[in-house]
Amino acid sequence: MPETIGFIGLGNMGTHMAANLLATGFGLRVYNRTPERARELVEKGAVLAKTPAETATKGGIVVTMVVDDRALEAVATDDFARALGQGGLHISMSTVSPRTSEKLAAHHARFGVSFATGPVFGRPEAAAAGKLWICASGAQAAKERAKPIWNVLGQGIFDFGEAVGAANVVKLGGNFLLTAAIEAMAELSAMVEKNGIPRKVVLDFLTKTLFNCPIYNLYASRLIAADFEKVGFAARVAYKDMNLAQQTAAQAQAPMPIVDLLCDRYLTAMAQGRGDLDATVLAEGAARDAGLKW
Amino acid sequence: MPETIGFIGLGNMGTHMAANLLATGFGLRVYNRTPERARELVEKGAVLAKTPAETATKGGIVVTMVVDDRALEAVATDDFARALGQGGLHISMSTVSPRTSEKLAAHHARFGVSFATGPVFGRPEAAAAGKLWICASGAQAAKERAKPIWNVLGQGIFDFGEAVGAANVVKLGGNFLLTAAIEAMAELSAMVEKNGIPRKVVLDFLTKTLFNCPIYNLYASRLIAADFEKVGFAARVAYKDMNLAQQTAAQAQAPMPIVDLLCDRYLTAMAQGRGDLDATVLAEGAARDAGLKW
Amino acid sequence: MPETIGFIGLGNMGTHMAANLLATGFGLRVYNRTPERARELVEKGAVLAKTPAETATKGGIVVTMVVDDRALEAVATDDFARALGQGGLHISMSTVSPRTSEKLAAHHARFGVSFATGPVFGRPEAAAAGKLWICASGAQAAKERAKPIWNVLGQGIFDFGEAVGAANVVKLGGNFLLTAAIEAMAELSAMVEKNGIPRKVVLDFLTKTLFNCPIYNLYASRLIAADFEKVGFAARVAYKDMNLAQQTAAQAQAPMPIVDLLCDRYLTAMAQGRGDLDATVLAEGAARDAGLKW
Amino acid sequence: MPETIGFIGLGNMGTHMAANLLATGFGLRVYNRTPERARELVEKGAVLAKTPAETATKGGIVVTMVVDDRALEAVATDDFARALGQGGLHISMSTVSPRTSEKLAAHHARFGVSFATGPVFGRPEAAAAGKLWICASGAQAAKERAKPIWNVLGQGIFDFGEAVGAANVVKLGGNFLLTAAIEAMAELSAMVEKNGIPRKVVLDFLTKTLFNCPIYNLYASRLIAADFEKVGFAARVAYKDMNLAQQTAAQAQAPMPIVDLLCDRYLTAMAQGRGDLDATVLAEGAARDAGLKW
Repeated sequence: MPETIGFIGLGNMGTHMAANLLATGFGLRVYNRTPERARELVEKGAVLAKTPAETATKGGIVVTMVVDDRALEAVATDDFARALGQGGLHISMSTVSPRTSEKLAAHHARFGVSFATGPVFGRPEAAAAGKLWICASGAQAAKERAKPIWNVLGQGIFDFGEAVGAANVVKLGGNFLLTAAIEAMAELSAMVEKNGIPRKVVLDFLTKTLFNCPIYNLYASRLIAADFEKVGFAARVAYKDMNLAQQTAAQAQAPMPIVDLLCDRYLTAMAQGRGDLDATVLAEGAARDAGLKW
Repeated sequence: MPETIGFIGLGNMGTHMAANLLATGFGLRVYNRTPERARELVEKGAVLAKTPAETATKGGIVVTMVVDDRALEAVATDDFARALGQGGLHISMSTVSPRTSEKLAAHHARFGVSFATGPVFGRPEAAAAGKLWICASGAQAAKERAKPIWNVLGQGIFDFGEAVGAANVVKLGGNFLLTAAIEAMAELSAMVEKNGIPRKVVLDFLTKTLFNCPIYNLYASRLIAADFEKVGFAARVAYKDMNLAQQTAAQAQAPMPIVDLLCDRYLTAMAQGRGDLDATVLAEGAARDAGLKW
Repeated sequence: MPETIGFIGLGNMGTHMAANLLATGFGLRVYNRTPERARELVEKGAVLAKTPAETATKGGIVVTMVVDDRALEAVATDDFARALGQGGLHISMSTVSPRTSEKLAAHHARFGVSFATGPVFGRPEAAAAGKLWICASGAQAAKERAKPIWNVLGQGIFDFGEAVGAANVVKLGGNFLLTAAIEAMAELSAMVEKNGIPRKVVLDFLTKTLFNCPIYNLYASRLIAADFEKVGFAARVAYKDMNLAQQTAAQAQAPMPIVDLLCDRYLTAMAQGRGDLDATVLAEGAARDAGLKW
Repeated sequence: MPETIGFIGLGNMGTHMAANLLATGFGLRVYNRTPERARELVEKGAVLAKTPAETATKGGIVVTMVVDDRALEAVATDDFARALGQGGLHISMSTVSPRTSEKLAAHHARFGVSFATGPVFGRPEAAAAGKLWICASGAQAAKERAKPIWNVLGQGIFDFGEAVGAANVVKLGGNFLLTAAIEAMAELSAMVEKNGIPRKVVLDFLTKTLFNCPIYNLYASRLIAADFEKVGFAARVAYKDMNLAQQTAAQAQAPMPIVDLLCDRYLTAMAQGRGDLDATVLAEGAARDAGLKW
């Protein structure tokens, strides 16, 4: 029978993930900065913790799914590690910098706590369906112990080795590839429209033929509708990720000019008060530079 | 019964296209700058023309599939248009600038010749299988008349309207989207490798999950192998296309920063003597900038 | 005694240059597309020609100072070269592509006409004062013969060798260096202002210390005033030059990423209806990207 | 009579600055991580301190001139601030991030210590001659008290207001303008050389005419010689500054595409083992991209 574990971070993704764990028989002690978000889970049997540390039991497991590095560091304190204690396991699933994972893993080790990294790909609907793609890294034993949990949350686990930050690198890299595709479609759209061809016609053609994959279909439909108010993934969060990608690339001395461009597009979106819109709002940059308004 | 038409340009693509037309019952008068490439088609019944104009009959049809704007202009002369004459149709399927199509359409009109634009997506294997995607533009009547030919060559025809250069714009835009995907994967690969993770592991993951479409699978496998000697599409031809995209965007006043980057990557490849390798060779840029050698 | 020569192109620069030649004792046959601009010169003794060819005499000299490559090619026709004839000299001082100079030099040679290239640096006030900097290239004899004229127009002649396009390359390169300085100051200005420091304070400091040279002082004062309506050099002309620089670099396989950026900034300025303003208007790009309005 | 003050950081700049203070009559307690560098100063009367805190006296002044943010934070500890104590003043002259200044100023305030920011422009020779340009910011009283010291070190003091980080913003911005000029000259050089014109000829022309200011003359001569082993300012330090500029711009939401390019050029220099060479080594990027070797 599955054990009782901690779960911290009940945002768009975390709430669905926690619900799936509950539904499969795991006991849950949940924590969120704004406790209201825990209500539904509590009704289904989860216990509400008043602090991150309270979600932990000695030698137990806590899953974290929070918004950024700062939030993760605010959670993963000495108190938290002490509460998990010898034999404990922290499964960190947020999209954060590899450096943060390395730092926390070293910190936790001093308390006898293991660290497994498991950032995910997939939108809230995929989280709800237990269909996330999970990128795993960290010590082999930690990942083995995390597996029953990851099997509930995802449709596939990809192992990137024992370096604790490796899965974070891959997650940032994947988000880069997604965002680069949006920018490329945006530039294409501006160019064809200035040549008198509606972007819908061109994007429909390309996503029915060469680029017939869910990612391109999803973003093309967003760009066609230019409905950036419907937020799947906020621009300021996408910026956070591209900024982490830029820093991660810089620390490794690997220039990424398209990452630079994406950071600049998002900075502009935020500077113009558009940071809370959907991440596809970066397309406004290419449009505006061409004198278009979408 | 299908008529006898002209076919000019027996390169990697054109040879397969002509063969398919022959096999479906079209008669062919073929022309190529180096006539040796016509031998197999002649054995199958095609007639070898000594000049581009000789492929034409009054009021007939000629298909052109040549390497670039200059080659197309060298073919589509006064003599050529005069030979096609009143009621003739030139179906131009090369990847050229929209301006060239506009210029030639205007030129041909003075001789009573119609012009249909039909650039294609697909590699030589797709051409051989009659599975190209055809982008069509031009006057409605011209496109209607081209259809039986296009139906032989392609698995789908997409109509971009009556502006004769529209299909060229879409073709250049599509090649941009492909090339941008290569660059993005290259930057990603350099970044993960400098973080200690083999690019194969990351590209395999991404193309099995979010980017599971033929285009990404094809280019990812090329980047993993770094086997740029196996040329599907030469770097200098890719440069030609990105340069046309840059000019087309400039004339429409639509800046495309990723196109700029791609032009620069290809210029570097050519400056370093790598222009005859496969178009994926642009990935060497991101690698070299990170101090890597693939 | 100075001879009588032809002078074509009476814009902001050419009018002053022609006036200086007249004042020094040269006889002038002048031509301009809009002949009204010649009135003052005619009052001072110049003869108004009705065609470019009419400015020429057999074996004589014609100076051209027109707006772009197209205008120069419209002037330098067969008729023009025939009128100059054996022993004639065309001194081309416009900012055009090196390819255009090469083409015209070859064209003129068939008529026995020499070609000297002499684009200039300096604003209209410098032209009026005879203080231009002249970049010279072409055959030695042609440059020698041009010297008495150039000595009237400029404060210095710099010889870039016998390749007829060399001086054009240098002129485009110099304009690039100027425009790059504007963009750098614009980015700097946006950054300091978003950090709460007025751009005036910072640009004043830098142009009083490290960057105390006329060029930086001039452009800094323009950026501070953001008075783009006062046009010294129009944005669309600056775009023309950066576009020529981009093409010249591309033909030589020498990527210039800052040129790409400048082309894009100017395309945006034009796409937003700002192409007739001063070239410093490109600074609006960096401001807008930062959410500022100057 | 000038008082006795502390001085921390005896690098290429600091050693000259400290010597000038000594020579003007200030007493000095000096500290450097590698104490050997203090020998000459000690011979001239300076006292060698064993820790940063030992350079301080209650209510006194300490000047810091260290290599980067990390070094400054390592110096400006609780012990250090406690030793300066109520009424003390820390004059921070290193090139660091404005955030670091803000953080340290807040930290010091808790110990009653004031903070004046005074980063400088000028190479070691200017430091030796007391001809630095000093950018000042911080509370008015702190700057007033720093003035007698700054007057010894510099030929001019420019005041950027009371925000403690303002002078850092200006310093980073100025270094950006310098480095952008190097990149622009490098791109220009590659382009003219690929067009057959030696860069020396073109840079000599431009720095004798439009760009006749010390900065351009200095860097042009460096680029012409391509003698990057002679290090005035190391590439890795220039990268540090451009990276701080990028972060400072990002925090203020002001995209700076030329800063991005410069960061990437320096990352490549470091990735290729060239980080210890002179900052002008970034010019190798433009050369290599054009297939040139300088």
